[in-house]
Amino acid sequence: MSSRFGERFSVTTFGESHGGRIGCVIDGCPPNVPIDVTKIQQALNRRKPGQSRISTPRKESDLVEVHSGIFEGKTLGTPIALSIPNKDPRSTDYKPNQYRPSHADFTTDQKYGHRDWRGGGRASARETAARVAAGSIAAQVLQHHTALSVCAWVDQIHHIRAAVNPDTVNISNVEQTIVRCPDLKVASEMIEHIENIRNQGDSVGGIIRCVARHVPVGLGEPVFDKLEADLAKAMLSIPATKGFSVGSGFDAVLMTGSEHNDLFTTNNKSIVTKSNHSGGIQGGISNGMPILFSVAFKPTSTIFKPQHTVTPDGEAIDLQLKGRHDPCVVPRAVPIVEAMTYLVLIEHWLRQRALVG
Amino acid sequence: MSSRFGERFSVTTFGESHGGRIGCVIDGCPPNVPIDVTKIQQALNRRKPGQSRISTPRKESDLVEVHSGIFEGKTLGTPIALSIPNKDPRSTDYKPNQYRPSHADFTTDQKYGHRDWRGGGRASARETAARVAAGSIAAQVLQHHTALSVCAWVDQIHHIRAAVNPDTVNISNVEQTIVRCPDLKVASEMIEHIENIRNQGDSVGGIIRCVARHVPVGLGEPVFDKLEADLAKAMLSIPATKGFSVGSGFDAVLMTGSEHNDLFTTNNKSIVTKSNHSGGIQGGISNGMPILFSVAFKPTSTIFKPQHTVTPDGEAIDLQLKGRHDPCVVPRAVPIVEAMTYLVLIEHWLRQRALVG
Amino acid sequence: MSSRFGERFSVTTFGESHGGRIGCVIDGCPPNVPIDVTKIQQALNRRKPGQSRISTPRKESDLVEVHSGIFEGKTLGTPIALSIPNKDPRSTDYKPNQYRPSHADFTTDQKYGHRDWRGGGRASARETAARVAAGSIAAQVLQHHTALSVCAWVDQIHHIRAAVNPDTVNISNVEQTIVRCPDLKVASEMIEHIENIRNQGDSVGGIIRCVARHVPVGLGEPVFDKLEADLAKAMLSIPATKGFSVGSGFDAVLMTGSEHNDLFTTNNKSIVTKSNHSGGIQGGISNGMPILFSVAFKPTSTIFKPQHTVTPDGEAIDLQLKGRHDPCVVPRAVPIVEAMTYLVLIEHWLRQRALVG
Amino acid sequence: MSSRFGERFSVTTFGESHGGRIGCVIDGCPPNVPIDVTKIQQALNRRKPGQSRISTPRKESDLVEVHSGIFEGKTLGTPIALSIPNKDPRSTDYKPNQYRPSHADFTTDQKYGHRDWRGGGRASARETAARVAAGSIAAQVLQHHTALSVCAWVDQIHHIRAAVNPDTVNISNVEQTIVRCPDLKVASEMIEHIENIRNQGDSVGGIIRCVARHVPVGLGEPVFDKLEADLAKAMLSIPATKGFSVGSGFDAVLMTGSEHNDLFTTNNKSIVTKSNHSGGIQGGISNGMPILFSVAFKPTSTIFKPQHTVTPDGEAIDLQLKGRHDPCVVPRAVPIVEAMTYLVLIEHWLRQRALVG
Repeated sequence: MSSRFGERFSVTTFGESHGGRIGCVIDGCPPNVPIDVTKIQQALNRRKPGQSRISTPRKESDLVEVHSGIFEGKTLGTPIALSIPNKDPRSTDYKPNQYRPSHADFTTDQKYGHRDWRGGGRASARETAARVAAGSIAAQVLQHHTALSVCAWVDQIHHIRAAVNPDTVNISNVEQTIVRCPDLKVASEMIEHIENIRNQGDSVGGIIRCVARHVPVGLGEPVFDKLEADLAKAMLSIPATKGFSVGSGFDAVLMTGSEHNDLFTTNNKSIVTKSNHSGGIQGGISNGMPILFSVAFKPTSTIFKPQHTVTPDGEAIDLQLKGRHDPCVVPRAVPIVEAMTYLVLIEHWLRQRALVG
Repeated sequence: MSSRFGERFSVTTFGESHGGRIGCVIDGCPPNVPIDVTKIQQALNRRKPGQSRISTPRKESDLVEVHSGIFEGKTLGTPIALSIPNKDPRSTDYKPNQYRPSHADFTTDQKYGHRDWRGGGRASARETAARVAAGSIAAQVLQHHTALSVCAWVDQIHHIRAAVNPDTVNISNVEQTIVRCPDLKVASEMIEHIENIRNQGDSVGGIIRCVARHVPVGLGEPVFDKLEADLAKAMLSIPATKGFSVGSGFDAVLMTGSEHNDLFTTNNKSIVTKSNHSGGIQGGISNGMPILFSVAFKPTSTIFKPQHTVTPDGEAIDLQLKGRHDPCVVPRAVPIVEAMTYLVLIEHWLRQRALVG
Repeated sequence: MSSRFGERFSVTTFGESHGGRIGCVIDGCPPNVPIDVTKIQQALNRRKPGQSRISTPRKESDLVEVHSGIFEGKTLGTPIALSIPNKDPRSTDYKPNQYRPSHADFTTDQKYGHRDWRGGGRASARETAARVAAGSIAAQVLQHHTALSVCAWVDQIHHIRAAVNPDTVNISNVEQTIVRCPDLKVASEMIEHIENIRNQGDSVGGIIRCVARHVPVGLGEPVFDKLEADLAKAMLSIPATKGFSVGSGFDAVLMTGSEHNDLFTTNNKSIVTKSNHSGGIQGGISNGMPILFSVAFKPTSTIFKPQHTVTPDGEAIDLQLKGRHDPCVVPRAVPIVEAMTYLVLIEHWLRQRALVG
Repeated sequence: MSSRFGERFSVTTFGESHGGRIGCVIDGCPPNVPIDVTKIQQALNRRKPGQSRISTPRKESDLVEVHSGIFEGKTLGTPIALSIPNKDPRSTDYKPNQYRPSHADFTTDQKYGHRDWRGGGRASARETAARVAAGSIAAQVLQHHTALSVCAWVDQIHHIRAAVNPDTVNISNVEQTIVRCPDLKVASEMIEHIENIRNQGDSVGGIIRCVARHVPVGLGEPVFDKLEADLAKAMLSIPATKGFSVGSGFDAVLMTGSEHNDLFTTNNKSIVTKSNHSGGIQGGISNGMPILFSVAFKPTSTIFKPQHTVTPDGEAIDLQLKGRHDPCVVPRAVPIVEAMTYLVLIEHWLRQRALVG
């Protein structure tokens, strides 16, 4: 059940990177909601490999097929199954008898005793295509019923930081550049830096920020399924992530309570807060302010410089990787962060619906 | 089910801060394991209020009663229920008609339409006593079967940072000071700073670091229940937390892949890594190296300076809080972080046992 | 998690028959619903031992204590914990070194390797007190929001069968006799028969029927959580049950499709069926007609005739049981069947609320 | 999540009867177990339509495609996805505006507000093909690790009853006739009777019995997930079922305790029972004796005699169904009963493995 996310809008993904198909089944999607399959495809296109000169050259069209759960353009309330065939694996780039540093080869072997070594298997970010497809369906359901919207962007690459206003940023801004940073000047620097790093056979990471606006008040369930707790889990389940922070995040540590507290006031008869260090969540429950969080991504583990490693028998070897990989996964992770955010929000929206009718 | 943590070692907590009892039921504890109830009490004593001059003066002895599941000093494999009576609530410190800034009063009212306003209810950190008790049982089970151990400490308070070696730190070091920072010189500064802040009617936060050593290789279940994902959720479910990072954390962003990758080598015929930027987890699965992570805590929301806020009707009011609160929750959160870590680890240890027998 | 029933209205029971306390925690109860604790106690009184001359003489007042989740007479939406102290165990009636026939002694030892032999432990029907308490809360929530009601009765004891009209039977009729059979003439025969059987040191079983009326159309979730499937599981989880049937039940086998099909018609503009062989459920979903089912109970395993059995070492021994037991558990099982029915219905009522808002 | 069965070996099925594909994803299958895909196909062939003159003439080859989770002939421990294309739907046999008696048309419309009316949708027994495929994988895993085996057969059709010895029956016996009754003389009568009934445009039901032998002692988890409770749920989730009984079943009611109790003795140093009224389960836990249960199936709802019914608007209409349907579903349900039994057993086998290592 570890390939399942969510208990109400319950998504089970499947598929190895170099296997036959990847995909998912969504169990618990509310019935009678219009779903536009072209929107699912558009979301997938934002994640797919080969989309720009700073992403991997693996060529996958990632064309989605929907097998069930939608009839006459609307959800049936039954499981929605969808899948994508793997078209362009190149298994000759991989070998069973070497553990790539900071990859899952060693731990997968140890855990399961049997491994599809022809690629990253389930550890490959290829699995996240299914998440993006499911996230698009979640988004369509939520937006059929609420005004909620989610927008993520690249906020930092290596040491290069953008300045982005989370109150006004939108997906059109984000899509203006291939690095998905809406600060256009900084975006150019980022792209140039990624290209330099790739030319050195090396890689870099970065930070994605994400805002969810018009989230209904009341989502999130104390004490364990607090909204920030479920977001943290969702984000740390994305490959290559190392950290999560919400609202003031780690900077909260440098403030006193009197500086950090968000004072209540009213705006058009709604109760709002003057500041938003809480990041839109108080006591684990959304308070109607924008939900704002950050996710840290490590540099891609696949690099093309020589490295020392071992075989499964513990023999020391020199490793020179080949293959097609992103020198920086962060731009392609933007739609994944958004998808996981929608999956968290629809889960809690369904839970709240059950509680209060 | 949002008061339940874990699916195998499944802990359901209950109880409002000012209600009759708080406690939990653990369903799924393996049978035939010796449990020492005095160890549960010792763990609770590390968390209880009134333990030092830098914690709240609320006096709760937090004496635990075990109602079921243990017979002749050993687990039966049946649910273990335990509870703690609330002895020293002072409900006159609270009022139903004012929303305390950065507390859960407003969101709780909005979500449930009915609230136990006599204290923080479920949002109070009082609920975490049940987690600490459950965590002690998890620790005893794990330590009956493995060599695993967990140690957390206060690494930073406000701007004051300690220097602690995660390879050697242990609970005795941590318990040497009331602030639970094993860097003794820095600990004194922290204590003095917290006292100053309290005298100003203000509050501060900090960072807890935690290490889990001798964790068996193979714990953690891709793709959603990765070990770091479950740790992130566990930590962000603790009141007042704002961020989580594992291994290199947000600093990973500033490194290249060639700097960040953990190269494999052998040590006594075991495969290990030379560095540990991965924080003991690769591809969501423990690799046998120490698991190392950080958690950021905001400054306590209850301060004794005047604040502006609103009533449930949106009327602006001036607020002067009374009551007994920690000027800094971080020292008392150390056993909570450890308890949640044990709960994550036992969950995955049980899962792995089922997979491989 | 095997002591948990329900995923939305999630009840975890705890407690051994001869331990300190039995009880439960309910996680997921909707907020803001009035709960009358005296009604919980009344439900418990219908199940408690010592209530009549045909039940066990064990004296337990079964006074319930509510620890959390209810404030000012209304649910908070937080976990409701309640417990009952064990007052009158008599452990000297039990021995660790003999396996009572058709009891759980042998299988419990084999499964867990450690057993509370001072009574039936978790296998004792004493555990069902917690279910009855939880069922009363479920009933109160459902009846706050819907017109739904559940009524069970003893339909057969050994070979003595009653004739009861499921359309008109109600709890007052059922409570007229200590055997809980609303057919008064047959009830007298049943009582006399049970007394005779008890005087012989023997025991008997019987059949309980149950009807749920005014169940909203649309409860039950294909394909696995069909309403009859969840009812079947709920009933077979009650100690001493051997069978479950819904609507026409096993008699359906003796009919042709043209005899069995329930033809649709209208009644006051509602779509109804002319017959009800479906038992109020079609395709796993309630259709608005009365839900009607039967549960078979075996004769009590504890008898006071000499029996052959073995010790844990496999040594053959003669067994003469002592103790206080019901010669027929069926009358006291009536409120348990009702409670489990309410737990199934509230689960699906909450699920349906989430799906359609 | 209502299309999911099992929490450890967790099977999610998908697909409408007249949609693109049906299939399932299995999450939680243990790694490193050889799987023979031809055995999955053989199991499907026993269930597929058009297999004999007493089954529906719908022609589906039901060729299974495995998309993930198996590599080099062995399970990876990752999700196993498989699907079957729908090749021969004939949607012109169905109409949206009539409610077929004792079908799920009415309740599906009421529950979801949107329905795939081109066939039975999810209520069609076509969905069970995915269960059979998953059951075959469960069987292969269990039989890799244990000696367990399951055998089901048709024990009764309408009023015609077979005499079958559950200790010796095996699948070869069962497969000797198209009605899957190993009592050959009675099987001929059954076949003739089904053909007569079909020629009248009518239908009949029957009883399937099932035995599981060499089940390890200790499977089943009190108090709610008792083995018989999970079997009951599994069986009542199969379309057209009306009842379940285990061991002595409803006949237990007619016995006294002294007749019904299964006395313990030893056989080759193992503790066994002399009789098996318990049906191999005591206190919800397998005791090592054969597990024996019965399932009642109603007559097929689709008949070709004229019937009265209503439209969604409640207008009375005369109904004359067309289409291709089994006059008796019971023979084709035999592999479904077996599959669900394997799914229950593997779930509990995995749970027990986690508890005791």
